[in-house]
Formats: sequence, C-alpha cells, structure tokens
Amino acid sequence: MIVTIINGPNLNLLGNREKDIYGDGRFEDYLEYLRELYPDAEFRYYQSNIEGKLIDYIQESSEESDGIILNAAGFTHTSVSVADAVTAVTVPVIEVHISNILKREEFRHRSLIAPNCSGSLFGFGLDGYRLATEALIHILNNKK
Amino acid sequence: MIVTIINGPNLNLLGNREKDIYGDGRFEDYLEYLRELYPDAEFRYYQSNIEGKLIDYIQESSEESDGIILNAAGFTHTSVSVADAVTAVTVPVIEVHISNILKREEFRHRSLIAPNCSGSLFGFGLDGYRLATEALIHILNNKK
Amino acid sequence: MIVTIINGPNLNLLGNREKDIYGDGRFEDYLEYLRELYPDAEFRYYQSNIEGKLIDYIQESSEESDGIILNAAGFTHTSVSVADAVTAVTVPVIEVHISNILKREEFRHRSLIAPNCSGSLFGFGLDGYRLATEALIHILNNKK
Amino acid sequence: MIVTIINGPNLNLLGNREKDIYGDGRFEDYLEYLRELYPDAEFRYYQSNIEGKLIDYIQESSEESDGIILNAAGFTHTSVSVADAVTAVTVPVIEVHISNILKREEFRHRSLIAPNCSGSLFGFGLDGYRLATEALIHILNNKK
Amino acid sequence: MIVTIINGPNLNLLGNREKDIYGDGRFEDYLEYLRELYPDAEFRYYQSNIEGKLIDYIQESSEESDGIILNAAGFTHTSVSVADAVTAVTVPVIEVHISNILKREEFRHRSLIAPNCSGSLFGFGLDGYRLATEALIHILNNKK
Amino acid sequence: MIVTIINGPNLNLLGNREKDIYGDGRFEDYLEYLRELYPDAEFRYYQSNIEGKLIDYIQESSEESDGIILNAAGFTHTSVSVADAVTAVTVPVIEVHISNILKREEFRHRSLIAPNCSGSLFGFGLDGYRLATEALIHILNNKK
Amino acid sequence: MIVTIINGPNLNLLGNREKDIYGDGRFEDYLEYLRELYPDAEFRYYQSNIEGKLIDYIQESSEESDGIILNAAGFTHTSVSVADAVTAVTVPVIEVHISNILKREEFRHRSLIAPNCSGSLFGFGLDGYRLATEALIHILNNKK
Amino acid sequence: MIVTIINGPNLNLLGNREKDIYGDGRFEDYLEYLRELYPDAEFRYYQSNIEGKLIDYIQESSEESDGIILNAAGFTHTSVSVADAVTAVTVPVIEVHISNILKREEFRHRSLIAPNCSGSLFGFGLDGYRLATEALIHILNNKK
Amino acid sequence: MIVTIINGPNLNLLGNREKDIYGDGRFEDYLEYLRELYPDAEFRYYQSNIEGKLIDYIQESSEESDGIILNAAGFTHTSVSVADAVTAVTVPVIEVHISNILKREEFRHRSLIAPNCSGSLFGFGLDGYRLATEALIHILNNKK
Amino acid sequence: MIVTIINGPNLNLLGNREKDIYGDGRFEDYLEYLRELYPDAEFRYYQSNIEGKLIDYIQESSEESDGIILNAAGFTHTSVSVADAVTAVTVPVIEVHISNILKREEFRHRSLIAPNCSGSLFGFGLDGYRLATEALIHILNNKK
Amino acid sequence: MIVTIINGPNLNLLGNREKDIYGDGRFEDYLEYLRELYPDAEFRYYQSNIEGKLIDYIQESSEESDGIILNAAGFTHTSVSVADAVTAVTVPVIEVHISNILKREEFRHRSLIAPNCSGSLFGFGLDGYRLATEALIHILNNKK
Amino acid sequence: MIVTIINGPNLNLLGNREKDIYGDGRFEDYLEYLRELYPDAEFRYYQSNIEGKLIDYIQESSEESDGIILNAAGFTHTSVSVADAVTAVTVPVIEVHISNILKREEFRHRSLIAPNCSGSLFGFGLDGYRLATEALIHILNNKK
Repeated sequence: MIVTIINGPNLNLLGNREKDIYGDGRFEDYLEYLRELYPDAEFRYYQSNIEGKLIDYIQESSEESDGIILNAAGFTHTSVSVADAVTAVTVPVIEVHISNILKREEFRHRSLIAPNCSGSLFGFGLDGYRLATEALIHILNNKK
Repeated sequence: MIVTIINGPNLNLLGNREKDIYGDGRFEDYLEYLRELYPDAEFRYYQSNIEGKLIDYIQESSEESDGIILNAAGFTHTSVSVADAVTAVTVPVIEVHISNILKREEFRHRSLIAPNCSGSLFGFGLDGYRLATEALIHILNNKK
Repeated sequence: MIVTIINGPNLNLLGNREKDIYGDGRFEDYLEYLRELYPDAEFRYYQSNIEGKLIDYIQESSEESDGIILNAAGFTHTSVSVADAVTAVTVPVIEVHISNILKREEFRHRSLIAPNCSGSLFGFGLDGYRLATEALIHILNNKK
Repeated sequence: MIVTIINGPNLNLLGNREKDIYGDGRFEDYLEYLRELYPDAEFRYYQSNIEGKLIDYIQESSEESDGIILNAAGFTHTSVSVADAVTAVTVPVIEVHISNILKREEFRHRSLIAPNCSGSLFGFGLDGYRLATEALIHILNNKK
Repeated sequence: MIVTIINGPNLNLLGNREKDIYGDGRFEDYLEYLRELYPDAEFRYYQSNIEGKLIDYIQESSEESDGIILNAAGFTHTSVSVADAVTAVTVPVIEVHISNILKREEFRHRSLIAPNCSGSLFGFGLDGYRLATEALIHILNNKK
Repeated sequence: MIVTIINGPNLNLLGNREKDIYGDGRFEDYLEYLRELYPDAEFRYYQSNIEGKLIDYIQESSEESDGIILNAAGFTHTSVSVADAVTAVTVPVIEVHISNILKREEFRHRSLIAPNCSGSLFGFGLDGYRLATEALIHILNNKK
Repeated sequence: MIVTIINGPNLNLLGNREKDIYGDGRFEDYLEYLRELYPDAEFRYYQSNIEGKLIDYIQESSEESDGIILNAAGFTHTSVSVADAVTAVTVPVIEVHISNILKREEFRHRSLIAPNCSGSLFGFGLDGYRLATEALIHILNNKK
Repeated sequence: MIVTIINGPNLNLLGNREKDIYGDGRFEDYLEYLRELYPDAEFRYYQSNIEGKLIDYIQESSEESDGIILNAAGFTHTSVSVADAVTAVTVPVIEVHISNILKREEFRHRSLIAPNCSGSLFGFGLDGYRLATEALIHILNNKK
Repeated sequence: MIVTIINGPNLNLLGNREKDIYGDGRFEDYLEYLRELYPDAEFRYYQSNIEGKLIDYIQESSEESDGIILNAAGFTHTSVSVADAVTAVTVPVIEVHISNILKREEFRHRSLIAPNCSGSLFGFGLDGYRLATEALIHILNNKK
Repeated sequence: MIVTIINGPNLNLLGNREKDIYGDGRFEDYLEYLRELYPDAEFRYYQSNIEGKLIDYIQESSEESDGIILNAAGFTHTSVSVADAVTAVTVPVIEVHISNILKREEFRHRSLIAPNCSGSLFGFGLDGYRLATEALIHILNNKK
Repeated sequence: MIVTIINGPNLNLLGNREKDIYGDGRFEDYLEYLRELYPDAEFRYYQSNIEGKLIDYIQESSEESDGIILNAAGFTHTSVSVADAVTAVTVPVIEVHISNILKREEFRHRSLIAPNCSGSLFGFGLDGYRLATEALIHILNNKK
Repeated sequence: MIVTIINGPNLNLLGNREKDIYGDGRFEDYLEYLRELYPDAEFRYYQSNIEGKLIDYIQESSEESDGIILNAAGFTHTSVSVADAVTAVTVPVIEVHISNILKREEFRHRSLIAPNCSGSLFGFGLDGYRLATEALIHILNNKK
C-alpha cells in the first residue's frame, strides 16, 4: 500500500516555531514513527509553500498511490484550484488539520477541500496522520 | 479505560432506514465489534432523541468516564445547551459524524459543538467511532 | 385508513388562551368533529412540548399510520432533528399551521420541515386539519 | 358562488411540457372536472404572461367574485405590484402553487403575495385548486 | 406572594464547575438566603435540562404564581417554543442571566425571550435573582 | 411648458380604495386642480399597470415634454428596466410617492429609480405632484 | 406662521467650498430670498455642528414654531438621538437634503430621520427649502 | 436554419441614445449585416419592453426556430418568469449582452437567465450577436 | 456612598411628552423619592443632549463617585466614544433603560455600552434606577 | 496576428478526466484544429498550475502578442493578483471558461478577472476558444 | 510650517489610564518632544470630547495650517460628519491611531475618515505622530 | 541593522506602467535613495509574483534581518498563507502599500496581513518605504 502525505504552506516549520500550537515534534521524525508503525505501507511525503506545486503533486501522485492524506494548511480556506485538483483524483483523499480549525479564527472555519474528501479530521495534533492512515486502510479493505 | 459513546436524535434508526446514507449495520452490532477490538476498554452507550436527556447524560457520564465520543446528530447545528454541557466536562470529548456534514446541506456545515471538543471526525461511516477510540487512547496515554 | 395528528409545543393551550389568534375551540372537540366527518378513518392524536418525544412518536406512528398531519409549532423553525425524523418517514406527511406563519414575525417565515413534507397548509385556522385530511385521502387514492 | 381562478406566467404550458414537474393534465380539462365537482359554483378562469394584465384582472374580477384563487407563478417572488393589487381586494384570495416552492431554488422560497392572502397551499399538484375551493367555501360559510 | 424561579439547562451545575464564570455558590444555598430576605414571599424553584419540561412548567406555574423569574440559559438564544410559552403567560416574567451575555460569544447576544418579558437583567451574578424579586414586587405593587 | 405625469400600477384605484393610506380624492379631479393652478402649463397624464407600457410611454413622452413627474409605485423597488428607461431620458424627471415609503415595509425603502432622477419627494400626499411641478419650473427656469 | 429652519454639521460652509456639489450661494443670502418670497411667514434659522445642540434647539423651537424644516446633514444617517428628538416634536417636520442622497455613497442611503417626518425632499438644491415651505403651508392649511 | 433574436426593454433605443455605451449603430442595420453574412440562415427578430410579451414570444418562437439568441436587458436581473420561460424551451438559447454587465453596477452582476442557457457572451458590443450565431451553428452541427 | 446618575439625550423631556412610553413622572421628582429611600447615599445628577459633555462628566464624576448609573439613551446604540469613556472608569457602572430596548426597533437592540458595564437593566420604568442602586450597594459591599 | 492562449490550473488534465464535464478532447489536439482554421494567425500556448507563473507569462506575452485568450480556471474566483496582471496588459484579453461557471457552485459565480477583460464567454466547451479568436479578430480589425 | 494636531474623545486621558494599551506618557510631554525634534515647525494642539467642536476646529485650523494630524478616536468609526469636515479641508490630513485598530474589536476596523486622508498610520504608539509629521513634511516638500 | 524589503506580485512593473497610480520611479532607483539616506542600514530586496516564494523568503529572511517591510500587493487581500508566514516571524514586520487601498475597490479594503504586523502604512507612495524604515528604527531602539 502506497500512502502519499502532502503538507501545505508553512508546515515545513513544524517543530521549530509556534510550538504551543503545533507541538515541538519535527514532521520528519513523526514520519519515521509512522513507517515503523505500518511496515507494510510505503509512505511518500511532499511539502511545498507553492499552491501550484501542490496541485502538480496531487495530480502526479494520484497515479501511483492508493490514498492521499492532505493537510492543505492555509490553502484549505482559499484555494478553489487545490479543491479542483482533489476532485480530479480517483483514490481516496483524507483531510487532516493538526489544530481544530473550528476553534480558531472565523476565516478558518470554511474548508473548500472537505466536500471533495472521503473524510476529515481536525484537532488531534500529529496523531491525526495516524488516524488518517487507519481510516485509509479501512476504506481500502472495504473496497476489495 | 471507560469510554462513553453518546448518540443523538434519530440515530436509533441506524440500520433500518436511509441505508444509502448511513449503511445497513445496526449500531448495537457495531458496538459488539468495538468491544472485541478493545477488550481492555469498557464501552458505555446511550442514545436519546431528547435534547435535555443528552445533557443529563453528558453531565453524569463525565464523572465516571475517561473520555466521551459524541455524535449529537441534528443538535450539532442548533443546540447551544448541548455545547454548554460539553464545555463543563473535564474529560476529553471527541465529535463524530457518520456522514461528511460539510458535503451536505448548508445548515449542517456549522457545528456549535466542535469548538468545545478535543477533535472532530466527519465522513468515515461507522469506522469513525473506531478512529475516535484510537484518538482517545492516544490522548489519554499522552496525559499520563 | 389511519391518520395520525401530531401537535407540537404550546398547542395544548388551544381554546384556553390567545383566543384572538387561535380561536376559542379546544382541539379535543375539533377532533370529535373530524371523526364524525370521516367515519371510515381512524384518527390518532398526540401532543407534547418535548422535542425528543415528538421525534419518538413520529418514528413509531409512521409504522402504523397511512399518513401524518404534523403541526410542529415552534419547532418548525428551529429543529433540524424533527425535520430529520420526517425525512425518515415513508408515509405522506402534511404540514399544518393554524395561523399564517408567513404573516407573523420574521423568524417564523422559515420552515425546516416543509421541504420534507408532501404539502403545507398555513392560515386556515382549525379547518387546516380537515383540508390536510382531504389532501391525504387524495394522495392515498392516487397511489393505489 | 363565483370563484375566479387566475394563473400567472408560463402556466399556459401545463400539460405540454415539463411533465415530470407539473404532471400531464391540461388545466382546461382540470377546470371541467372542478365544475362537475361543484355544480353550484361558477368558475371563471384567466391566464396571462403579462404582469400588468394580471393586475388589471385582479382589480376587475374582485368586483364580481366571491373569492379568488391565485397562482402567480414566477411573479410570486418578484412582483410588489401584484402583491399590492391583492391588498386592495376585499374578497378572500387563496394562494396556490402546484409544486412545493419551498423545496425548489432559494429564490422561490419567498412569497411577496402570501402575507396578503387568506391562506396558502404549496405542493399538492392540480389538487391544490380543489383544496383552495374547499377553503374558500369554508371561509364564505363562516362569514355569513 | 408566590414567586416561581425557573432555571434552564446546565444550571444544575452551579457551584460545582466553571466557578470563574458563575461563582462557587450552590443555587440551593442562595435560595435559602432569598427566602430569609423575603419572609412574606413563597419561592418555588424548578430546574430542568429538557426544553419541553421547562415549557410544561412555565404553563403550569403561571396558574399559581404572582410572577416568574426565568433564566433559560442556552435556550434563550435558540428556543422559539420557550418564547411562545412565555407569551401565553399572563403574570409578569423577569429574564435573568448570571453572566453578562452581551460580553460573551456573538450567538449569545440575541435573546428570543426578552421581547416577551417585563424586563431583563444581565451580569449581576446570583444577585440578579434578588434584583428580579425587587422588580417583581415593584410591578405587583403598582398594579394594585 | 409641457409636463407629463406618469403613474404606475394600482394608482388607477386612487380615491376608491385604501382611503386611509391614499386619501379619498380621485387623481383625475386632482389633475383638474393642477391645471387651474398652472394655466400656462400643459399637463399630459398616463397610467398603466403594465411595466413595459410605462417604459414605452417614458420613451415616447420624453420627446415632447419639458419634464416628467413619475410615480412608479410598486415598480420603484423592482424594475431595473424602468430605471434604465429613465436614464435614457434627457429632460428632468422628478420622483413622487404619495406615502412616505421610508415609513413602510423594508422592501419599499430601496428606490432603483431615485439615482436617475433630478430629485425625489416622499410623503406629501397628492400635494407632492404640485411640489414636483414647482421644482420642475424652478429647474427649467434656471436652465435658460 | 413661524417656520424654523435647522441645518446640521458642515452646512455653515455652504457657498464657500465644494461648490460643484452644493452650488455657490451662501445660505444667509438664500434665507433673505425666502423671506421676500413669503412676507407673511417668520423664518427662524439655526445651524450647528454639535449634535446635542441641534437636539436642544429642536426641543425648544418646537414650542414656538408652526413647522420645522430640518437638514440634519451627516447626522441623518447616524444619529438615533436626533431622530428621537424629532419624534417628540408635535408640529410637522420636513426633511430636506440639498443633494440627492440616494445618488451618493451607500452609507448616505439610509435616513434614520425620515420615518419620523411628514415628508422628505432630496436633490433639488437650495430650492428644496422653498418646496419644503410650500409643503408646510399646504399641511397647515389642511389642518385648520 | 432559423435563428430567432429577441431583445428586451429599452433596446429599441439602440443607435439613438447613450451611444457611448451602446455604439451608434441601429439594430435593424446590424440585422441586415448578419443576414448577408449568413445567407443560409433565416433570422427572425422581436423586441418588446413588456415582460409578458417576451415570454409569449419565447414560447411561440421555440416551436419554429432552431435556436434563440436572447438579450433580456433589464429583465436579466429581475425576472424569474422570463427565466422560467427559457427553461421550458427545448432548442438552445444563447444569452447576449452588448456591454459587459460584470463591469457595471452591482445589481447587474446577477443573471437569473444564464443558468438556463447553453452559453453566455458579455461585452463584445453588437459583435456578440455574430459570435452567438457562430456558437449556435457549432452546437447544432454537433447535435446531428 | 456617592452615586452619580447620568441621563443622555432627550431624557430632559421625561414627564412632559410621550407619556405612554415613559410614564408621566418628572425625573427630578423621582430623584427626591430616591434620596428619601436611601438617606445614607448622596445622589448626584447630570443630564445633557451633547455626547461630548456626557463623556466629560463620566470622566470627571468617576473620580468622586462610588458608582455610576448611566442611561445613555440614543447614544447607547451609536456612540463608540461614550462606550470608551465607560471603559476608562474604574468604579462600577450600571446601565439602565426605562423601556425594554429589546422590544423596540431593530436599531435599538444593540448596546455598545453594555459590554463595559457591571450589569444592565431594561424595561422596569423609572424603578430601574432604584434596582440599579440596589445592585450598586450589593457590588460595593462585596468588594470590601 | 499572434494570439496567446493561457490556461490555468488543472486544465492540463483536459481529455483525461472528468470527461462528462469537459469533454474527451485533449487541448493540444484542439490547438492543432485552431491553427488549421486560422492559418494566418500564430497561436502560442501556455499552461501552468502556479499562480505566479501565469502572472509572469501574462506580463511577458503581452509584449509580443496581439491579443490574449485567458482561462484562469480556479484562479478566476480567488486571485486579485492575476486580475491585477490583466489590468496592466494593453492588448485585448478575452476570458474563456469551458463550462458555464454561472451554472455551477456559488463560489464559481464571481469572476475577479472579467471586469478587466474586453469580453467573457462561458459554457461553449472548447468551441469557446474559437469564438474568442473570432472576437479578437473583430476587435483588432475595428482598431485599425 | 504650521502643523495642527487634533485628538478626539478620551485622548485627554493619555498617560493616566489604560497604560497597558496606550503607554504611560502624557500627550503634553510628547508634544514637547515633538517640538524639540522639529524646531522649524509650529505645532498647534487641540483636544475635545465633543464631535461638533472637533468639526469646528478642523474647519478653522485648515485656514491657518499647512497640514493636520488627526486622531479621531471613537469618532473614526461612527462620524460621517467628521469625515465630511475632512473632505472640505484643502491641506493634507494624516490619520493616526495609537493602537492598531485592525487588531482590536470588529467595530473598530472600519474608518470612515481614512478615505478622505492623504494617508493613515495605525499601531505605532505615540511615535505615530512623529511618523505623520515626517509624512506631512514629505508631502509639502513634493508640492512645492 | 539589516532591513529586508519584500514586494509582491506585479510590483516588478513599477515605473513602467500605470504611472498615474504608482508614479514613474523604478523601485531599484528608489532603493538606492534609501541606502544613501540610511548608510548604517543594510537593505535587502526581494520581489516575486509567486505566493509560495514570498512565503519561502519571509521564512528565510526573518532569520537574518532585524525587520521586514512587506508590500504583499494583491496577496494582501487573499492569502491566508502569507499571513500565516508573517505570524511565524519574530522580528517586526511593517506593512506598506503605495496607494491608499482604502480608497480603492471594496475587495482591497480588507488586509489579512495587517493584524499580524507591527503597523501598517497606506497611501504615501514610495515614501511609505522610508516611513516604514523610520518606524522600524524606532521599534528596534525601544526594544533595546
């Protein structure tokens, strides 16, 4: 099983800054932990601050993955184009946000991406990526 | 570990009606499956169509549980009082919805309860309750 | 033919108070009149001020009735949960309001329940229940 | 008893087009049926696609009728002027819509005419005209 | 003089939780204090988390009381039905909120109940109930 | 000086109905009074309930008049097309309303026509037409 | 007949500045012209930039005048207090604006004062004060 | 191929007025030009300022045309009834506006008609009618 | 104890006008009654129609008073500046309105001042000032 | 004549996915067809998913082209920056959308780019690019 | 160079209260500092809590100053009249706010005055007045 | 002192186009002028049309700079992601706009970035960058 994790803008800063909000773990360390937890799965990872590169990667990776875990960060609320890219994808896409976006500023309450995803997870910290992997496995098993 | 699952109005119909939306499994059967999956946990279950009884139960169960999984159904969007009850609870509360409420009618997009929860899960079907249990275990382990 | 009439909050006061708005007839007397008018029909009647009990009754009565006449009163404008209960019902449901809710305060103009009903009647006084019965008979005859 | 039925724009197409929404009966045939059903009543009928002609007719017919049944179709949602004409009428006016306008597009949810009518009926198909006649008879009998 | 005090959802928690907002006095103790302060008055007290039961009690108690002091808590902002019940009451009703609802979240700023009350008091803590009693005495004295 | 007065829908009823709002004078009588008051002016008068005919007449009369006094009645609030017709006119147009539209229902507060007129007069009863004539004379005198 | 003209903030600049909008006539000169035109009337005039002084003057002058002509300028759109003062006045008040406020910025479209006036005149330049005087004479003559 | 061009209110003024917006060509001349350009097509033309007559003509012409080019002018933004008429038409309808309505006032930005058309063209001047003809030919060729 | 009562615009008219709303008592008489009721308190009183003078007085009086009772009348809904002045005050400020502002026009429903006050009282008539005094005494006693 | 066609995000997927919406033709094939149809024109083509690269290209290509055909896809609704780039261009820009964006989701109804273009075409499928070329030729011929 | 600094309501309290927001410097001391910093400039200073007096002063000072620095405080958000006064001024006006009003409450985000000023400065503390002086010098030097 | 100036999309065109809005100076020339004015400061400069590259640069430059001057141009109004990047920066960031964005189109009135900046400057032309440098120096001096 190939799982592609895509992180959007500013998430390359995880572990370095605003630790009170996002915790102090680096995402690369967390990724190692995930790989140990699911040795049968291959995790591919991509992060970019550039909207169009995320769209490129969503398009490309959907050819070779069994599922995508997407944290579009700030683009969640503003990017019709990322949302369109998700629509064109045929494998399941799970939306993750580290913080609970419904607890934060008003403009973070709307997700343009959620309607195009299989499911959404908000507010579980980095553990949200593990839960999303669990959800993907369940969806893929039921498909067979 | 004691986990309390609380389901709101009309969820007693699960498995009998509107199977295209909610699937054809009865919640009681699913509960058995959860209990087998997590033999170390004690699952308590409550369902009511009455807003105030849900509030009563949230208040009472929070004394004896380690965490609550709450699907407030239609009250999610309208009940300030259920949301207030969740605020008064000191154990973690996870919000679950079987369908992806962000894909449905406009009036289902707003959750009054989400801002008071540890995290939220939308659109994973009944599997959302398993993912919520996973999330609870993670939160409780990190607390210790 | 079994017809179930369900009245929501404060309608137990009919005939006692606010006679200028609702007239001075008690609903029980009116019910007798309906029964005489349609001797072949069995009328069942339920009133409650409790939202969840109305949901319970809608669920139960739909099993045994050929049609439901529902005046949800104040819940008409606020209860997603009552509206969800009506959606799950497979027999025709007719919405009745004694006064013309579109003539009254702004917050009474929106009916969450109407989109899930076969038809709606506003402003005919108690005679609205007779007209609803007429409508039910017509719908049921055409079905056969 | 003289009953005037007034139909607004595009209702001359009834029975020819969009049969899935409006059924396949022509209104003229239905009118015959109504006349047989109520042999003591005289039914007058008018249809126009022109807003001002409907206003003319509402003004004129109110002199000679005992009641009006009005389906203003698309003008229902936009015409302050038709609504003003209804206000000036002293006989009872019943609003009818063949489809349930509250189930359709947002801009059909508002009726400018309803606040000036004795009552409103939505969603009963052509049978709505019969129910409106019933309602008129009841109103007129109670007046005496 | 019979004064009925009615408290809505979650107010049974007063004195146990969220003491920074609501203080640490139990309502039962405060009630004793009120009774000593006004030995000539009889205070009746009711609390429920169930919307319909509050409606029942408002209806019943209005028969036997000289005035009602109502803190509808979360229902203040959402319940057309409680507001309708207050309208049907003929004795004076005073609205009390322990905290200043206008200082809190936006959705708490609107009171559906206030327009139907003799007066409203926000933000005086438990002392608001004493002030409401003072107001009731004044209103009743002026009536005579 | 040629002055054209154009009245919109339902104003043919002036003097016959709703006398509490519009007074009991017929417009034709008032017109005679105006003609006596200003013997040097030629008054032309047109009334229609049909939006397009008003547009036709505005277009035509602007060729031969020195000024137009327009009471578009219900079309004031809804007709982009009448407003467009006024824009195309090169003689001054004065907007008159018999009642003070800013005191009436919300939907009467917006005038689509006012921004295209030389000036507007609300709430002076039939005397508004005399004041509009005064205003026209003043504007035309200043032009020369 | 005593007519009081009250001008609000910045209107003391008339004739000195922004001549393209307000013309180049000083209000004092215009006042002389009005006095010559209506030798039987006594015109009193007051201008202030201070909201509360306008309120004082409205209160005082209403005792001794037969009518008031009020151009509240910028306070038209924002001052509940000036509007309240107008409500308390028992002689007729005519609202005048030199420019057509419905043609200008959005925030100038709403008049808090208009609903409390006998009538309103917008966009006739200084001639609006003459028309308002004409309207006052008409209203006072009809009262007798 | 029969192409019906329908122009709405005030478009009879084309070439006479407001030439800076609409150019100085008369529509009749332009029509000749179109006929020469497409000798194999028969162009029928209709213009009216009356909403209902446009509806009549849309209904009738759709029987005999292969396609309709509709410029509803001011009715574009306000007429649910014209939009309903377009829905009932089975031949393709192309919406044309001479000016770019999205560049003009806010209330011109909404088109009730566009959702019911095959395509829309804004801002090309009279050339928009030629482009619409091109589009119609393309659509009809692809249908075969 | 020094209590400063400050009344805003138009409240100098109390007892003279609009007696159906505000009663027929003059405030000066009421003040005498208050002084007799609380012989140990010194009541200072100020009224002005001028926004800035109220701000001046709030600033000054807060130095020498133990508490302020403020009825800002029309400024309640529009004056950020009066609200800012209240924020800068360190003694408790109680907001009073004679009528229940939540029962009146929409624009009176918002209080800019309430969020900065210890508490608010609406709708008790002049008795609201006595209740506010009671509240002040209670707050001051609890502080010690 | 040099015509530059610029396609925005996700349009590289044309012909591969969502064929029910966008048809099954690849844009490169369509481009060949266009080149054959207009042998005298040179067509340049650019597609990118990256907002800033589209801005770069709009800036650069406008130096060397006679006109631009722009389908900004998802950026149409969100990118003030692309709209600003179009403003700075001095050759005509035609906006094209393959589907009729006014028929789709609400957030696609607003075009930030349209106000800065010569004209807009929605809903003609790939044929929209041909019509845009026709429009460009017409505009350029008229300029000479 | 004559620079007039005008401070609006409550700014006379600077240095005495709310020091956490506004710092603890008195404005008079700061003014001395400014005067030393710019010995060639003459600084005039005015503060008032009265809206109309600020308008008076803006009008008068604009005759004798080379530029105005205006901190309208609470009137920034509510006073159309102060904004109108600024419009009538021909010397440059710079808007200053000590705190960043865009970081504070929603109702402080809108400035009615900004559109009429040469520039605006928010959030620099008292240093904003120095920056505004710098800006004025620059504007005046460029004018020459 | 190291000052980083970052300019967003389309600002590379400064001095070449739209000179009436932005002046005719090239930013590179202006930068030289700034460097001469502040010989002790090191100015670094970056411009990009790509949102993500601006985010990259903000992240990187904040490590090595003492302050940032940011003109995000079109992204100011739409980019939650750039705003998030600014939040993560620990050195002061000053927002600059050459034109007064509050005087321009409605959609330019909202700045997502302003709430995260130390201060904002609009409408001073290129001089805004100098004023921002002044502000930075002041902030940095006060920090020490």
